[in-house]
Amino acid sequence: MTTAPWRDAALPAEARVDDLLARMTLEEKTAQLYGVWVGAATDGDGVAPHQHEMTADYDWDELITHGLGQLTRSFGTAPVDPVLGAQALARAQRRICGAGRFGIPAIAHEECLAGFTAWGATAYPVPLAWGATFDPALIEEMAGRIGRDLASVGVHQGLAPVLDVVRDPRWGRVEETIGEDPYLVGTIGAAYVRGLESAGVVATLKHFAGYAASAGARNLAPVRAGVRELADVTLPPFEFALREGGARSVMAAYTDTDGVPASADPYLLTELLREQWGFTGTVVADYFGVGFLQTLHKVAGSTAGAAHAALAAGVDVELPTVRCYGDPLVEAVRAGEVPESLVDRAAARVLRQKCELGLLDEDWTPEPAGPVDLDSAHNRVLARRTAEESVVLLSNPDGLLPLARDTRIAVVGPRAADALAMLGCYSFPSHVGTHHPGTPVGIEIPTLLESLRAELPDAKITFAEGCDTTNPDTSGFEEAVERAAEADVCVVVLGDRAGLFGRGTSGEGCDAADLRLPGAQAELLDALTATGTPVVLVLLTGRPYALGRWEGRLAAGVQAFFPGEEGGPAVAGVLSGRVNPSGRLPVSVPRSPGGQPWTYLQPPLGLAGTVSNLDPTPLHAFGHGLGYTEFAWEAAGPPASVIGTDDTYDVSVTVRNTGAREGAEVVQLYLHDPVARVTRPDVRLIGYRRLELAPGEARRVTFHFHPDLSAFTDRAGVRIVEPGALELRLGRSSADTVHTAHVTLTGPERHPGPDRRLRCEVTEAQA
Amino acid sequence: MTTAPWRDAALPAEARVDDLLARMTLEEKTAQLYGVWVGAATDGDGVAPHQHEMTADYDWDELITHGLGQLTRSFGTAPVDPVLGAQALARAQRRICGAGRFGIPAIAHEECLAGFTAWGATAYPVPLAWGATFDPALIEEMAGRIGRDLASVGVHQGLAPVLDVVRDPRWGRVEETIGEDPYLVGTIGAAYVRGLESAGVVATLKHFAGYAASAGARNLAPVRAGVRELADVTLPPFEFALREGGARSVMAAYTDTDGVPASADPYLLTELLREQWGFTGTVVADYFGVGFLQTLHKVAGSTAGAAHAALAAGVDVELPTVRCYGDPLVEAVRAGEVPESLVDRAAARVLRQKCELGLLDEDWTPEPAGPVDLDSAHNRVLARRTAEESVVLLSNPDGLLPLARDTRIAVVGPRAADALAMLGCYSFPSHVGTHHPGTPVGIEIPTLLESLRAELPDAKITFAEGCDTTNPDTSGFEEAVERAAEADVCVVVLGDRAGLFGRGTSGEGCDAADLRLPGAQAELLDALTATGTPVVLVLLTGRPYALGRWEGRLAAGVQAFFPGEEGGPAVAGVLSGRVNPSGRLPVSVPRSPGGQPWTYLQPPLGLAGTVSNLDPTPLHAFGHGLGYTEFAWEAAGPPASVIGTDDTYDVSVTVRNTGAREGAEVVQLYLHDPVARVTRPDVRLIGYRRLELAPGEARRVTFHFHPDLSAFTDRAGVRIVEPGALELRLGRSSADTVHTAHVTLTGPERHPGPDRRLRCEVTEAQA
Repeated sequence: MTTAPWRDAALPAEARVDDLLARMTLEEKTAQLYGVWVGAATDGDGVAPHQHEMTADYDWDELITHGLGQLTRSFGTAPVDPVLGAQALARAQRRICGAGRFGIPAIAHEECLAGFTAWGATAYPVPLAWGATFDPALIEEMAGRIGRDLASVGVHQGLAPVLDVVRDPRWGRVEETIGEDPYLVGTIGAAYVRGLESAGVVATLKHFAGYAASAGARNLAPVRAGVRELADVTLPPFEFALREGGARSVMAAYTDTDGVPASADPYLLTELLREQWGFTGTVVADYFGVGFLQTLHKVAGSTAGAAHAALAAGVDVELPTVRCYGDPLVEAVRAGEVPESLVDRAAARVLRQKCELGLLDEDWTPEPAGPVDLDSAHNRVLARRTAEESVVLLSNPDGLLPLARDTRIAVVGPRAADALAMLGCYSFPSHVGTHHPGTPVGIEIPTLLESLRAELPDAKITFAEGCDTTNPDTSGFEEAVERAAEADVCVVVLGDRAGLFGRGTSGEGCDAADLRLPGAQAELLDALTATGTPVVLVLLTGRPYALGRWEGRLAAGVQAFFPGEEGGPAVAGVLSGRVNPSGRLPVSVPRSPGGQPWTYLQPPLGLAGTVSNLDPTPLHAFGHGLGYTEFAWEAAGPPASVIGTDDTYDVSVTVRNTGAREGAEVVQLYLHDPVARVTRPDVRLIGYRRLELAPGEARRVTFHFHPDLSAFTDRAGVRIVEPGALELRLGRSSADTVHTAHVTLTGPERHPGPDRRLRCEVTEAQA
Repeated sequence: MTTAPWRDAALPAEARVDDLLARMTLEEKTAQLYGVWVGAATDGDGVAPHQHEMTADYDWDELITHGLGQLTRSFGTAPVDPVLGAQALARAQRRICGAGRFGIPAIAHEECLAGFTAWGATAYPVPLAWGATFDPALIEEMAGRIGRDLASVGVHQGLAPVLDVVRDPRWGRVEETIGEDPYLVGTIGAAYVRGLESAGVVATLKHFAGYAASAGARNLAPVRAGVRELADVTLPPFEFALREGGARSVMAAYTDTDGVPASADPYLLTELLREQWGFTGTVVADYFGVGFLQTLHKVAGSTAGAAHAALAAGVDVELPTVRCYGDPLVEAVRAGEVPESLVDRAAARVLRQKCELGLLDEDWTPEPAGPVDLDSAHNRVLARRTAEESVVLLSNPDGLLPLARDTRIAVVGPRAADALAMLGCYSFPSHVGTHHPGTPVGIEIPTLLESLRAELPDAKITFAEGCDTTNPDTSGFEEAVERAAEADVCVVVLGDRAGLFGRGTSGEGCDAADLRLPGAQAELLDALTATGTPVVLVLLTGRPYALGRWEGRLAAGVQAFFPGEEGGPAVAGVLSGRVNPSGRLPVSVPRSPGGQPWTYLQPPLGLAGTVSNLDPTPLHAFGHGLGYTEFAWEAAGPPASVIGTDDTYDVSVTVRNTGAREGAEVVQLYLHDPVARVTRPDVRLIGYRRLELAPGEARRVTFHFHPDLSAFTDRAGVRIVEPGALELRLGRSSADTVHTAHVTLTGPERHPGPDRRLRCEVTEAQA
């Protein structure tokens, strides 16, 4: 018996897939186009019992008769030891291989938004915290560990990163994003993808595209946006992650933009993604998103119609259900309603990916390769470093921070003594905490209170919770105020409780009607600031909250975005001074709770000073963050230059640590376009570099600006580089410019294509 | 000396304009392209002294050397007797005629949003109240009176109506709109235009287009919207007002949509408006809007550049300044930077309009034709009727309303005893009240307290203000609570203080961060409902406010939108029962203050039930309103039908007044499109009819539905009538369907053009 060509690892993938497809029945091909939740309940090994609901309608043996495209979240949301999980996944794969004619395993995918979402796996800081690090190299390293851990238990694909650009900070999923600037999201997002893909794991870019701008910040609400916002704000991070990260999968967004659901949009999923950008991987549906075309968007009248619309647009894989791509699709193809060529197109993409992953090879085995340790010491070091780099010191007017070592500290607030205060909604312990309270989560998560006690053993630390995160009850205020009044300093720890589907104050489905601190926390802070004891506000949140009410009333403000399992020591380290804070805001901190949506990417009309009583100026600007040392910015230049529209221009600055301790400065480059043919943001980030400097050390940073970075989409929908004046603003934040370089672009208008320069190259040298 | 052809009234306008243009210098032509505020300060006759600021830079004699296109608001914002105003305007016109070579007067324009904005002129209810009447014939009659009054003092053009469709109820200018549904705005707006134009006054449709959707509801903020929202929601009211109203002017909006400022958008102002819709009138700038292209939008680098962009796009007249269309334009044309043909195009349009208005005729005289009475008894009757029809009875669960005639009533609240509570920001007394407090306004405006005392002479009525509209001070609560506790019923009168530019809680520039009642009014209502005395809430507002907090705690709720100078008697009449309320909500009343923007025009994804903790379901739906009699809806039908995509289908219902008193019912027809190729609103209004019925009387109403009314803009940007199933829902509001007719459209897909049917014809007969 000779080996079939599709089994022959020596042949090119294309030839193998062609051979395989030609051998497959319609049922076998469509079976590659969906993924379902592996129903552990059916064989009783406890992988994810409660997910039985998801699979209750399926007869597993029947379902896998023709093969199976994907396996969904075998590690699920219930506590299971990852070693047992890996074994269960391997068993499922053996069943799938054994059932179909070809013995092709499924692609196993998992969530990994802030680390592998599994029992006992490292819970890293959330993406919004990655944004705050302004440190792509660190995020790449972290993602490499996540990829390695996923691969170690037999997982092929991770459903991350989220590349949505924040358009309304009230949205519950802001914690899952990298921030409100496309350049920051793109560069950090691409770094994450490089890390994950370097471990051989397929990264999945989501949500493609527009989801973050849902109206009123209600999760899944329709998106009101035009083509220029899409092209210039929403899409660039995806271009970064595909070109610089090599992502092999893209997830279609749930939402519709201006009436067109992303999952049924051939322009987005085929014309732009594949024909213009050259993407060759797979497009997967967001969970149940194909069916939503019928049930929520009502652009299809049946499950078969939904399947047709999604498949024709370019959704290759339905997840995590066979609702549309199962029998309805097969029947529609048989009835001549859906061309079989659409099935072939999607199946070829899935099989090519399986081929690349080695899943078509004869020697493929479902058994995990090596020992499993999803929360290694190495992981924890990275989790700690990421957390430390992400903490943003918002204000410290009198230098109260770092805290004195032997002071009396009242720690107050509902987030101080709760380990879950460190985690976002996609971290495994948040699921467990919601669904199975009290269950061990398999990892250590020190609270901030514990960490502070460890950090400052000589301090006298008292604690009062004060109130809950959501309950309006203020009966705990009295004790909290007493503790504060007795202390030299009061550290108030407020913020969010992450949850899914409305079960928290931040997270998927946990949208905010306004940006007021949840529950009675604002009143608690009022009561504490009224004591006269200096108050240090520590926020552990998934989004920015309005802080204008306490302007001038806080001794210091510290913002951490769900900093992960090592967040307690990281924040405590900032408070004690062991850690010199270096995080920068990836989102603006507003003054007042209402008046949203707003982000810093505003043309002049969106800034203060027009005819409205509402002033949208944030309290703390995008890019803002303080530290415990001082940096001098020296010899910035040149001041002005004239270049062609296809030339490069270098702008440099020397940054010197003039303080007494090591620290990091983030040099940020913003573009201001004084006149353009469409309205442009007053400033937008086009480059940055994080510098770690010893006391007295100086480094010269040079940004190699290319006019492609000034490109925008004009009225005709064409991307142009427009000749004329530009300002390159080097600064400490979007609102704090240190040097402005005036550049005049001369020569012809250019229309850079999808291969345009996305990134501002940066070099640095000892000065 | 022979008469020049342009002076010859026997020649066609086109020939006269051609002749005149050929005689004019560049300076004379550009002089027709701007309007300025007539500086009464220069000749001391007191027309509008404080407007001197606007004209301080001009030497009047020099300015009018070459003629003048428009005169801006001679009746201004300061108190001047309209007879004196008319004389001053005539003097200004004589100066203009005397200064230029041709002796052509200016077009005099005025604001007339809710009546002529002048001292002593009738202050009608605001447009949002017109929407609540669902009575286009009444609004047409009212607008006819407004036009007559404008014409009586020498005014040629009125800067109304506002046809913006509410997209975010927090916007300060919501009071100036007709509501949140394009069909309602279009039909009522067209009626207003017909009325104004019937008096020979040029109606000005504004703001073209998109302004209402400014981000975060901040006035003048950038608009995020796509082409389908523009085509299917924003633009239809303008189509109505042009086709059915015959409006002769359009005002370009301040805002940009998706980066393109309306004032510099050739698609909007020329391609769509003139080439597709056939508009031949003038496009005027919003005040200072041409200059904003340079200063706010930054799509032009100079005043000449702004002039070029606006003129090329299709803005014919700059108002109320010569900043861009004055010297900068002349110089740019001389320098060859702006084609003179653009000046000619705009000047021809202006001169053609002047020709049509008789301003080129030799016998034209600036003297007012007849006696001036801007607040006649006839006007007041119309103002009263409009007010009465606009009051919406939100709830009356136990039938507490109408009030007993001899009861003890505590009238409480900051809006009860303030005449300005009745008026929006564009009513003259609101200006005076802001700029010249205490000055007589020339008209009688009874307060609600006065009106109620007159209405119920046998009742014992006490009053306490309780609090201010904006001040958080609660020191008046105690007295208010006492008054309420002593009474049989407490009538709480809350709402807005209209103002301009941030000087109020509603009005231009008075945007709301959220929909919480302003100041301490919510707390006052809490305190009053806690007394146990039944509370009747009366709202006098310019926008809807969130009322969910008091659900089930009010004895009754009455919503009036700034009901004008006769609003006091109208609302008092509803409370006493003299008036049977018949208003219907032109905007939804939300439950909670946050989570905006939201309007009822939502596809299923924008409704409750998706994955968000925020429930946008309003407390009171669009179209809702109660009364004091009962209506039976009988024999609605037919239930189902199949028609061609170009056929008409009749759906009918008989409405019978089964109660004991005369009253009005508003039969509303909504379209539900179960499946479409883009997402569609769950329901949208496509027809309505207001019926006045005596007790026992019944009338049969028939809606002649044509499939054009189901048209929408597809993915390709083409308007289509899509074959398939539709539901025509006859109901009492958007949420209260009485009868559903299932219609199936068969036959070919159609692409109706700009001449498509906009209106659902309705007939009625005695039943």
